[in-house]
Amino acid sequence: MDDVRFAVLGTGGIGRRTLEVSQHKDGLTAVAACDRNGVAVDHGGLDVEELLEATEGNIASGPQDDMATDGGAAAATEGVKQHGDQAGVVASEQGRPTETPIDDVIAESDAIDAVLIALPNLEHDFIPRVAERFAEADYEGVLVDVLKRSRVIGMLDDREEQLTESGITFVCGAGATPGFLTGAAALAAQSFVEVEEVEIWWGVGLKSGYEDNRGTVREDIAHLDGYDIETAREMSEAEIEELIDEHDGVLEFHDMEHADDVLLERAGICDAEDVHVGGVLDVRSDEKPTTTTVSVTGTTFDGETGTNTFQLDDVTSMEANVNGPALGYLKAGVRNNRAGHYGVFGPADLMPRF
Amino acid sequence: MDDVRFAVLGTGGIGRRTLEVSQHKDGLTAVAACDRNGVAVDHGGLDVEELLEATEGNIASGPQDDMATDGGAAAATEGVKQHGDQAGVVASEQGRPTETPIDDVIAESDAIDAVLIALPNLEHDFIPRVAERFAEADYEGVLVDVLKRSRVIGMLDDREEQLTESGITFVCGAGATPGFLTGAAALAAQSFVEVEEVEIWWGVGLKSGYEDNRGTVREDIAHLDGYDIETAREMSEAEIEELIDEHDGVLEFHDMEHADDVLLERAGICDAEDVHVGGVLDVRSDEKPTTTTVSVTGTTFDGETGTNTFQLDDVTSMEANVNGPALGYLKAGVRNNRAGHYGVFGPADLMPRF
Repeated sequence: MDDVRFAVLGTGGIGRRTLEVSQHKDGLTAVAACDRNGVAVDHGGLDVEELLEATEGNIASGPQDDMATDGGAAAATEGVKQHGDQAGVVASEQGRPTETPIDDVIAESDAIDAVLIALPNLEHDFIPRVAERFAEADYEGVLVDVLKRSRVIGMLDDREEQLTESGITFVCGAGATPGFLTGAAALAAQSFVEVEEVEIWWGVGLKSGYEDNRGTVREDIAHLDGYDIETAREMSEAEIEELIDEHDGVLEFHDMEHADDVLLERAGICDAEDVHVGGVLDVRSDEKPTTTTVSVTGTTFDGETGTNTFQLDDVTSMEANVNGPALGYLKAGVRNNRAGHYGVFGPADLMPRF
Repeated sequence: MDDVRFAVLGTGGIGRRTLEVSQHKDGLTAVAACDRNGVAVDHGGLDVEELLEATEGNIASGPQDDMATDGGAAAATEGVKQHGDQAGVVASEQGRPTETPIDDVIAESDAIDAVLIALPNLEHDFIPRVAERFAEADYEGVLVDVLKRSRVIGMLDDREEQLTESGITFVCGAGATPGFLTGAAALAAQSFVEVEEVEIWWGVGLKSGYEDNRGTVREDIAHLDGYDIETAREMSEAEIEELIDEHDGVLEFHDMEHADDVLLERAGICDAEDVHVGGVLDVRSDEKPTTTTVSVTGTTFDGETGTNTFQLDDVTSMEANVNGPALGYLKAGVRNNRAGHYGVFGPADLMPRF
């Protein structure tokens, strides 16, 4: 476990921050990164600082063109287009242009232990299809994503046989929520023999991080009343600004379709329907509008009903709470992969089996 | 993982409650239990209800005589003696008398996946020596303990080679603290790239649970100013009552030697010296005198310093917070053991490798 070589697909907010955070972690070496126009590979370890400078301003970009998806992905790659074709990985001294970035990473994957899929996932089947391509190439290793939507888990499960045959350990929903907070809920549940409710309530202040995380904001908008994935995907940047103005920069969400529900159910913690996710996003302040809290209510073996809580300090940014856990789950995935545990795993599956 | 057959050494408070809690968990079958005078084995599954009734009143009892330890263990087995030789496991319809309870369990261990060592550990080397005996018998499986003292971890590490050769996965410190709260600290640390301090502060109200947990109270007393392991071990029950009276039933502890420190350090979370454990024990009320809280202070990759917190509801009993996690870590141990991961593991080692 002392040396994990990993790749990042996508160099938007999440991909770039993960590269940055990995420099603080022992035993993690970034060996490949790509976006829609370029790929950089160095099995001895990428120069992360240089790559980060070169990709500054990438907005949730990813190699969607390579995927031959329909126009839906276009909005998410807009940011890159604004910077012109020379922005992103190709602008790095380590990068080279390519029309097939994902295939280029797959071609190097014999020497890659884990791949973080940091691509926008407004297309539900996008990540499952990326996983399929790795499986078709007989990749043996770990794939990690930070997807959010419950329904995607089922799409991955549908491909579990193929992933297992290839030798892939797929860790899904390994960001903040689902991810960090799903693990916290699994842990907090351990006082109880029966869990009645899990409430995940998040606060994000995203003033200075807004540009870097437009893809995430767009995805969140799809959870508002009167919106869905399709309408959010089709909104222009101007329409999004207008919506944000109407709410004075503060968007509140209830009963979001976040995969924490199915991921806790599959780990045996509670029923999916007893999990509720909501939160408040303020794009005009870096202060969190509310404190991120996981509350787990259950009954102990001796008949008491109570609520355990896990709270993140308001000063911890969304980025800090996505990327640290994502790399932790990535390492846990590698450990499982090396032990021969293949298939689809959620964050709670990687916790001690309470 | 669907069927874990486990044994419990010792049927004092922790052993009995673990048997009770296991009935609420899927895939766990209790197949053996022993105390100093008796052993019960049924590979088809013990009748836990009957065994619990028969062992009612056992006080932190364990098969110490079998270990040929010195007089130190005598105090901890006093409770059983008060009930006479027919109390405990021998009083159960499933039990039979024995002078070698641990050897009797070892003799059956081919069909046992995991063994919870729920014995009093005022003798520091007692648990390491039990582990040795399993290794000498070439046991391949999991040993779990709920020990507390930091120094015992080193004694286990000294035996790691022997444990590994035998095929033993030893999970140490898998109760509440260390254990549940160590895992919570490892999780809460994930927002940070540098952890500055971990503070574990517990509250226990132990009026109705006092009789069942005299061994634990005695061990806690050793942490008070002016006391140590030896003095606490040699105190008579009357002396303990006197001490408790002097404090009006409420004992407050600071800078306890709890293995959370070395267990967090070995998992790479922080330095042992930055971990502080304390708490308040009230033996005259079942209300917790203070709320059990884990506070992890650290710095994020983007330079903010903050504190994440994990709190247990005051209504959750010490027993609930020891036994649920102990069984969870036991399952995690089995998963690791089946994957060929042998040696000594702490709770934080079993968390995703952040």
